[in-house]
Parts: sequence; C-alpha cells; structure tokens
Amino acid sequence: MSEKESKAKKISTESYKGVRDFYPAEMAVQNHIFNTWKQVVERFGYQEYNASVLEPAELYRAKSGEELVNEQTYTFTDRGDREVTLRPEMTPTVARMVAGKKRELSFPLRWYSIPNLFRYEQPQRGRLREHWQLNVDLFGAKSLQAEVEVISLAVEILRAFGLKDQQFAVRINNRKIVNFVMNEVLELSEDKAHALAKLIDRKAKMPASEFAEKVEALVGLKSDLFKELINSQNFENFISILPVPMRTYEGIVETKSVIENLEKLGITNVIFDQTLMRGFDYYTGTIFEIFDTNPDNRRSVFGGGRYDDLLAIFGQEKVPAVGFGAGDVVMKDLLETYGLLPAETSKTRLYIAIADDGATAFAQDLAQSLREAEVSVSLDYSGKKIGDQVKYADKNKIPFVTVIGADEVKSGKFKIKNMATGEEKVAIEKEIVEIVK
Amino acid sequence: MSEKESKAKKISTESYKGVRDFYPAEMAVQNHIFNTWKQVVERFGYQEYNASVLEPAELYRAKSGEELVNEQTYTFTDRGDREVTLRPEMTPTVARMVAGKKRELSFPLRWYSIPNLFRYEQPQRGRLREHWQLNVDLFGAKSLQAEVEVISLAVEILRAFGLKDQQFAVRINNRKIVNFVMNEVLELSEDKAHALAKLIDRKAKMPASEFAEKVEALVGLKSDLFKELINSQNFENFISILPVPMRTYEGIVETKSVIENLEKLGITNVIFDQTLMRGFDYYTGTIFEIFDTNPDNRRSVFGGGRYDDLLAIFGQEKVPAVGFGAGDVVMKDLLETYGLLPAETSKTRLYIAIADDGATAFAQDLAQSLREAEVSVSLDYSGKKIGDQVKYADKNKIPFVTVIGADEVKSGKFKIKNMATGEEKVAIEKEIVEIVK
Repeated sequence: MSEKESKAKKISTESYKGVRDFYPAEMAVQNHIFNTWKQVVERFGYQEYNASVLEPAELYRAKSGEELVNEQTYTFTDRGDREVTLRPEMTPTVARMVAGKKRELSFPLRWYSIPNLFRYEQPQRGRLREHWQLNVDLFGAKSLQAEVEVISLAVEILRAFGLKDQQFAVRINNRKIVNFVMNEVLELSEDKAHALAKLIDRKAKMPASEFAEKVEALVGLKSDLFKELINSQNFENFISILPVPMRTYEGIVETKSVIENLEKLGITNVIFDQTLMRGFDYYTGTIFEIFDTNPDNRRSVFGGGRYDDLLAIFGQEKVPAVGFGAGDVVMKDLLETYGLLPAETSKTRLYIAIADDGATAFAQDLAQSLREAEVSVSLDYSGKKIGDQVKYADKNKIPFVTVIGADEVKSGKFKIKNMATGEEKVAIEKEIVEIVK
Repeated sequence: MSEKESKAKKISTESYKGVRDFYPAEMAVQNHIFNTWKQVVERFGYQEYNASVLEPAELYRAKSGEELVNEQTYTFTDRGDREVTLRPEMTPTVARMVAGKKRELSFPLRWYSIPNLFRYEQPQRGRLREHWQLNVDLFGAKSLQAEVEVISLAVEILRAFGLKDQQFAVRINNRKIVNFVMNEVLELSEDKAHALAKLIDRKAKMPASEFAEKVEALVGLKSDLFKELINSQNFENFISILPVPMRTYEGIVETKSVIENLEKLGITNVIFDQTLMRGFDYYTGTIFEIFDTNPDNRRSVFGGGRYDDLLAIFGQEKVPAVGFGAGDVVMKDLLETYGLLPAETSKTRLYIAIADDGATAFAQDLAQSLREAEVSVSLDYSGKKIGDQVKYADKNKIPFVTVIGADEVKSGKFKIKNMATGEEKVAIEKEIVEIVK
C-alpha cells in the first residue's frame, strides 16, 4: 500500500456534524448542570423517568404535522418497514407513557427527565443537532398552584446555580388571553389569528416598519387597538385597554392569580408579556419563559406552560398538565456569562506515586483500604521518575499526592503532600482519610 | 368523523419495538445500578466522558466489516448524504476521542462512560435493541498492573452490589496464548485458526459430537492434542501439555502474573479458561469475563481485555489500553436473581396534605424552608378529603405526612406522621428536618 493510499484509509477523529464529544472537562460541566437540576427538582418531590431516543414517527405527526417530521427531524425506515424518529422533544414521549399506564398511575404525577433530543438543522451557536433538556411536568393538577409550583421550581434552579433574582425574570402570558384577544377583540379568522401569532413571535427579528405593515395587512381596521395592546407596559395597563366585560375573563383572572401567588413565595421578578406566544400548539392556559435580563443577550432559559389536551391524541380522557423544558447549551452559556461555572477539579483525592516496583502490591492494598473508606484513589504504574509522577497528579488537578517506596512499606508511615499549599503531613494509614477528605 | 375513523386515528402508546420505557419505578432500579457503577469507578480515579449516539458509519467499517455495519446496526443516510450509525458499542468512539486529542491529553487516562448502545436484531430476553453499558478503560499503561486494576475494579463493583465472591468468578485467557496455540501448536493457517476460534466460541451451543467432528475437520492430525488442551482443568495442567519451550512464552507469563497479582489483592475466584475467545478482533493480550457461578445460568456479566492497536485505524501511534463493558440488562437480571435490588422507596421524605385552601400559601412557604434545609417535600393541591391525600402519600411510599389547616397556620405546630409505624410527633418548623431525615 503506498503512503497515499494508507492516508486515504485513515478514519477521521471528528464527531458527526452538529453533535458534541464530552471529554472529562466538558463532562464535569455537564454533570454539574444535570446534578443541580436533579437536586432541585427532587426537593420538590419529582421522580425521574426516561425512554428510548427512538420513537415511532407517528407520535410526532399528530401535533407537529408532516412538514416538521420530515424536514426537521431525523426520521428513517427500519428493515421491518417501521418509520422511526429520533425524538425532537420529550413531551410527546411523556404523554405516551402517561396515557399507556393511566389506570395504574396515581395522580398527580410529578415527573422529570433529562433526555437528549435531536433536530435536523444547520448547526449554529446554541442550536446544535443534539442537545439535552431538563423536562419537568406535573400531571393531574387542575389547580393554578401547579403553575405556581412549576415556575417557582424553575426559579429555584437558577438560584441554586448562584444567579441573583435581578439577573433573570419570568415572562408570563396565557393562551386564553391570546385566543380571546385574537377572536373577540381583534375579531380575526382562525387563519389570520395563527398568522398574527407567528408574526408576533418574530417581532424582534424584523424592523418596526415591516412589523407595522404586516400587522396592518392582517388586522386592518383594528390596527390601532392592536398597537395599544401590544405596547402596553404592564398587566394593569393591558387590562385597562380591554373592553370592560373582558377584564374578568378566565385568562386574565388566572394570570393575576399566578402572579400574586408567586409574589407570596418571594418571586417578584415576574412580567406579564402579551407578546409571548411560544411555538407549540399544545398549550391551553398559562405560558411562561424565564429569560436572562442581560440587555445584550435576552435569551430564554426555561419555557413551558399548561397543556391539558395532549393525551387526547391517544384516545384518552384529558389530563391537566403543566411543564417546562430547559436546554443544556443555553444553561451552560448563561452560567459562563455570569462566571458561575465551577472551577475544574478532580474527583480523585489522592494520587499514589510508586518509587519502586516492589512497592506496587503494597500500594494497591493501601488504595483498596482507602477506597473502602470512600476516598477516591489512583495509582501510577508508569515506572517513571517520581518527579514526573507528581507532575501528572498536578496536571490532572488531584489535590493530594503520596510516594510509596521501600521505606514506606517498612515504616507504614506516609508523607501526604497538599498540592495547592505544598504542605506535607506524615500519617499512618488510618489518618490519611482525615487529611485528604 | 365516525367513531371508527376516530379509533383508527388514535396513536399507539407502545414504545418502539425492542426498546424500554423507564417509569419512575424502573428508573429507580436503573439509577441504583448506574450510581453504584459510578461510585466504584470514581473511587478508582476514573473520570466520566460521553459522546453522541450518532457516529459516522465509517467508524465501524474499519474493524467490524461491511456485514456487521449493514445488517446488525442502525445505519442511515442523512440529507447531507452522510452515512450515520447509532453506536453499537462504545470502544470505537472512545478510541476516536483519544486519537483526536492525543497530544493534549496526559496519559494514563482513566475514563468511563455509561452510553446507550443500539443493535438491530430480533429482541429477546436479555438482548434488546437498545441497552446501556458501563465502559471502563485505562489508556496508556503498558504494565500488567492495568489488567489487575481493571479486573479488581470489576470485582469491587459486584461486591458493592452485595454479591458474595462465591456467586461469581473471573474467567481469564490471553489472545497471545490463543494465537500461539493456533499457529505454533496446532499449526493452522490464519483462516482455519479464525474458524476454530469461532467454533470454540459456540462450543456450548452444539452437541459434543458435532463439536468433535468439526474440530477434526479443521485440526486434522492434531485433534488429540487439541482435545487434551481444551479439556485441561486448570492453568498448570494446560501449561504441562504445551511443548517445553512454549511454557515461558509471553502470553503464559502474563496470565500467570495477572492471576498472582489478583490473588495478592484478595481476589481468588479467578479461573484460566482456554475456551474464552471473545468476539472482537481488537484484543491483543489479556481477555477476561466475569460470570455468574449459578449453574442454572452461567451468564457473563463483564467482559473485556487489552487492546493495544485500536488507535492505528486513525493513523496514530499505538496506545496501550485495557477496558471492559458491563450491560444494564444482565446486571439487573443478576441482582434480581440474588434478591439484591433495593426496595421501592420514594426520594420524597414529607408529604404535605392541605386541609383548606386558605392554608396553601402557608404550606408552600413551609415547603420552601424545608427544601432549603435539603428535605424533599411535595404538596397536595387536589382539594380532596384528607384521607385521600394521605392515601396518595402511602401509595407513593412517601415516609412522612403532615396535614396543614387553619389550626396549624395559627399555632405553627405540626403533627408529623411516620407512615411505616403510624407514630405521630408534634413539631415546630425547625424540628421537622430532624424527624423526617
């Protein structure tokens, strides 16, 4: 084989396009995010579930339509002629699971999962083909306290990461308000209402003049009223623009109640936002997002709402549900921006350098005892110079090092070096645990 | 729409064929297995990594060949005309990652991961289309101590699950022994050696007479010697059958050393097994399995070995490596057989039943304080009778319950009921943590 051919045969070390490799340093960050998520949601009594990333394609056709399934998801046909999709979101899966065991499950269910999700699109910053997403759902609670709990849980997650309340805010709206404004205030047909919702969703992405023109075309005579509504600066102002009988409509009352109850729990960074639409068709009541208040980057970190009708696609009775999702990529970027990522450290507490081969079995035995005492210990079998063995520990951020040779085997006394301070302590076996913990 | 049409439109609640849904009860078992794995490997100083389940298909062609990739994996072509495979094993991925950053990484690497893996085959007991697998690898250690560490780590995992040493055993062989027996003792061509290895792998699956016939056809005149070798009952006996000069060949010396060093660490359930072949072509030295000694079900729980050449497919220098894999399905079955699965419990410690709506905000506040003190608390917003609220806690195995109504709001005193014993204790807020922890 010529050198050229041999080169051509080399396999690339690149990952597949748009997905990530997690080397230990990146994995540690990912684990920090996942563990914080888990800890907070479990304090609220939520239980973890999971499913396969492979789902029958029909699961997404019902709500997302053919276009989304075919163009924005990974869908393929298996050799048994089944259409399979790599899940693009978790809500259809959890709805399927709840519907599948509805009679055996005891409601309310407080469930969470951290699935990986796939979307077939051009990779760009913050939008990869694969990402992980915390999904939190409360099934079977009609009460608005469900919204209050789920939103306060999301807020607690950000606080647990070390964010201050002024660094983020909750944006809230209600699908019922959107609907009655569209249908009763602006008197739009269903098609026009849908188009207007999409337009509002993209408002920030176009010049004000273009937005105004497009609104005019859709809303016609009522454009001034629409402008007044969309420009109102707070909830009271928004309500005052509505015709009097509508001011006590369900959506208004619900939103007021959620905001008041969050306030009672000390969550005051809540903003009513009439422009919040959220893409999914399945929301039926409260919708919310939590966003970064940094004016340079008002990214959305959490998004969710109430969806009471989703189980209908499985031919089942409705089950009230409130939930949200939070992506790992946005979360990591947010923590990075605010300097809240943990410093790189090793979980390994002690590194045992070996001065001569004869000490290996003794060192392994010592390591074994320390592990039984819940200390993480790693050994060096390289036979390299002690200096190089110690350098390895330093490079790998292992906080304590000890060297074992004939003397240590004989005396049973070990010098434990603190790599950060340089301090050395002499210890017998049972004192080591105390020093390195 | 007629009722018939409406029925036809219902989406199935079944998962995709051959994969599993993890409801909270199954997820708890899965988490118990994963957490035990993680805890033990991290005590040995191993760091977690991960990658996407999507890999370029070429990654598997190099070692597995076209047939395996096309017929036994999920492989499809994306719209950018890239061939993508759902990873069927993790070793090629980790080799790719190590090769990709070889210059930046400081060896030895102690790495682990718990990926999900996909195989396209007919689902059967213990062989699903998707399973999770612990992968542990030590890269960059030439010393046989690497084998000793990795095998002892696997043993420690089983001990951590509560298995006794007599319930499992380590079966060990060495690819170098296999090779020189095939080439030098039996004097077989490469093709015949390969066929014989496959035959030995399937020995248990055919009648003894069939096996003998097929051996005869392959090995010819040396069949008696082969029989003697394959029937030898222990390592000493096996060695004594070999021609004298071969008794000190590398593979023999290595295997002896590994067995002796494991013994020094108190691991004595180690058996030399000349019939252990292991399917993968990439092993170059020690190969091992740990199996259940239950005579009714001698299943393999861990399998691995040394593979020093794998990075060559990326056009890189060799890196010595020792590793093993352990599947979640086999692990769960094993723990079930020996009654070692943990009892079903809830991570939620306290359930707050609410006697009247007016107490809700107060109860939420109390829950919030308890969560800050690291207690998992869940609240009932159902408005149901107290008896039903308490029943819910019982059904969900939440160990403590308190009921909050107007009296509790006024007095700040709470009756905390232990659901297992029926005992009730009266406590003020700050005493609750102590009681329920």
